[in-house]
Amino acid sequence: MIKVSVIGFGNVARHLADAIDSCPKIDLVQVYSRTSGAETFPYSGRIISRLDDLHEADLYIIAVSDVAVREVSESLPFSGKLVVHTAGSLDMEALDGRNRKGVFYPLQTFSKKKAISFRTVPLCLETQFEADYEVLHTVASSLSETIYAIDSSQRKALHVAAVFVSNFTNHLYKLGNDICQEHAVPFEILKPLIAETADKIRTLTPAEAQTGPAIRNDINTIAAHLGLLTQPEQRQLYEIMTTSIQNERKKL
Amino acid sequence: MIKVSVIGFGNVARHLADAIDSCPKIDLVQVYSRTSGAETFPYSGRIISRLDDLHEADLYIIAVSDVAVREVSESLPFSGKLVVHTAGSLDMEALDGRNRKGVFYPLQTFSKKKAISFRTVPLCLETQFEADYEVLHTVASSLSETIYAIDSSQRKALHVAAVFVSNFTNHLYKLGNDICQEHAVPFEILKPLIAETADKIRTLTPAEAQTGPAIRNDINTIAAHLGLLTQPEQRQLYEIMTTSIQNERKKL
Repeated sequence: MIKVSVIGFGNVARHLADAIDSCPKIDLVQVYSRTSGAETFPYSGRIISRLDDLHEADLYIIAVSDVAVREVSESLPFSGKLVVHTAGSLDMEALDGRNRKGVFYPLQTFSKKKAISFRTVPLCLETQFEADYEVLHTVASSLSETIYAIDSSQRKALHVAAVFVSNFTNHLYKLGNDICQEHAVPFEILKPLIAETADKIRTLTPAEAQTGPAIRNDINTIAAHLGLLTQPEQRQLYEIMTTSIQNERKKL
Repeated sequence: MIKVSVIGFGNVARHLADAIDSCPKIDLVQVYSRTSGAETFPYSGRIISRLDDLHEADLYIIAVSDVAVREVSESLPFSGKLVVHTAGSLDMEALDGRNRKGVFYPLQTFSKKKAISFRTVPLCLETQFEADYEVLHTVASSLSETIYAIDSSQRKALHVAAVFVSNFTNHLYKLGNDICQEHAVPFEILKPLIAETADKIRTLTPAEAQTGPAIRNDINTIAAHLGLLTQPEQRQLYEIMTTSIQNERKKL
């Protein structure tokens, strides 16, 4: 059985450790947590707080904040092992050269308050040495149904694209929620629309799926909307998004 | 059985006519289409191209483009009937005063190429006279599980919020797709992320669900992303969305 240790205890690390621990094909050896509070977890007996306490494993997954990856990889008390990070925006080269490098990037948004099935999380893999790819792929395919070989340059592009389709999208939900609250209508009414907007993308291209006043060039509605928005930031975003959609329209 | 006619043959009108026609509790009397091409539809025998050919019905639903609502309502060859429009951004008062006014606003995004279950579409209702609300509610509740009484001012706010969470969100999917194409990575990889981002909103508030470099104030990643974006429009949107998320962060 492949032995894996997870280094880190943030959102990604916890979701990953949970998935590995509940996978019968992989042995979760240890989880490194810098801070306390890990006692309530099912694998609490395997939680360590010093990197020097790390046991032998086939794979070490560093899932810490981007800025800490280099330092943590430099602090590992061994060499010649397979060590990967989970960061979308970091080069594989951010890892210290004493160990064999790789990347195990789960392209998903993880929140403490929401469980997620790791089976549906796309895993983007990269290794310094070809022979290591098989090990990483074996671990990945035990956890998820979707695996991609993605190099550092592709991964960075994916990470930016992910910010657009996820972080920025969620912020639009936030702005929609603000507008509802301001006008005393329940945000709840918008939830089927949010679900359908995302669902459309499973079968339509974003260009095919575009609807609304901007793509129809419905200047009356656009003017009415701008008149209704009270916050300068909302108006600015409305104008820029509308112009950006209209620019796409001109290309058609 | 309540008798309903649909006036219009665009996206909303077609989805609505289909839903009414397949509902055993409502009789779809006629569908008015200004243009031809309606022969292939199951209710083709009931398609008319002149408003003067409209028969007696309990409810007439005008589902045409916003700018045409007033003119169509003025052209109806009868008075004293219940006539509603389906537009999110129009006052009920846009309808001609010879008939009893109302609004039947389905808050959803409709595309020609994608079927949708009307049962899950929130219907926002308003009537000029209280007695008509019951008729409209009876029709609405035969079609959908979710009905809201929403006045014209609330509906306009909802419509703006809908543009943010749906039209603008879809445009972010478009920009994500562009970035993927430019860097030769399949957009497919992002689809589970898109689905999960929307799914989170069923149980978390948008503020709780926010993740990513902006809310973490991860200035290194933000700078790296801006360095990678090649299109001025992408950069501008990245900067404005990031600043807007960071402003929320400061309020916490």
